[in-house]
Amino acid sequence: MPALITYRTRVLPEWVDYNGHLRDAYYLLIFSHATDALMERIGLDADARDQSGHSLFTLEAHINYLHEVKLDADVWVQTQIIGFDKKRLHLYHSLHSDGFDGELSASEQMLLHVDVSGPRSAPFGEHTLVLLGALEKQQRDQPPPEMAGRTIRLHS
Amino acid sequence: MPALITYRTRVLPEWVDYNGHLRDAYYLLIFSHATDALMERIGLDADARDQSGHSLFTLEAHINYLHEVKLDADVWVQTQIIGFDKKRLHLYHSLHSDGFDGELSASEQMLLHVDVSGPRSAPFGEHTLVLLGALEKQQRDQPPPEMAGRTIRLHS
Repeated sequence: MPALITYRTRVLPEWVDYNGHLRDAYYLLIFSHATDALMERIGLDADARDQSGHSLFTLEAHINYLHEVKLDADVWVQTQIIGFDKKRLHLYHSLHSDGFDGELSASEQMLLHVDVSGPRSAPFGEHTLVLLGALEKQQRDQPPPEMAGRTIRLHS
Repeated sequence: MPALITYRTRVLPEWVDYNGHLRDAYYLLIFSHATDALMERIGLDADARDQSGHSLFTLEAHINYLHEVKLDADVWVQTQIIGFDKKRLHLYHSLHSDGFDGELSASEQMLLHVDVSGPRSAPFGEHTLVLLGALEKQQRDQPPPEMAGRTIRLHS
């Protein structure tokens, strides 16, 4: 099974700093759009959210900046499911572009399924659990994420 | 010594999602502005950057989303120096607002001092090292950051 590409974009002028480099927060915005796109694949698209009142909130994220990304670059996000339980989804996004072999950036994230009316945590629906299980199974032959499980330390 | 407040802002309309909540990437944008403000305190303001050709790049960040933040909220960032070496700065930003006791969000970050013309890593100047040392000393009596040193895990 090839890597799952969840999002493609060009790097926009409003995302870069005075040097023409993608600013740190906007890497995370690109990954955030990739999470939105993943939600559509697991039965949590905008229509379903409106009907059910449920959505995914980011609990925690780790991000590594591995290479500079410039204005107008065409980039894409690959997404790997690390795991999930009744109401949490653990995933890994990586950023890529043509002509660069490897990850430009990577973000490991923990997301929580939430009843927005609370807001309070809520179990995934059966449909979503089936789709997540299928996706995880499809990705079983992929190498483990390179930059997952990290702690930030000055002295290792 | 009271906590160092590096940045204040109102939550802008372009930063919130369809629910009127601050979107995950824009927490990091607020912390990114706080880093810019910190740079001005350690001799790395825009004028100095232009003259020296040096700047700070984010290498790695960890972010915890602890509480929702709504459109128009007045928020501020407190910044604590965790440590530094010849060319890296390890810091901790936390997000706060009136009427909420505690951290709305927290971000631990590792930043690298860079010669932008490479780009390649470069040692901090003496002036910056002195200012960082003074800041670290002033903050010695502060409690250790609550959400630092974390790893993302589904099963702990």
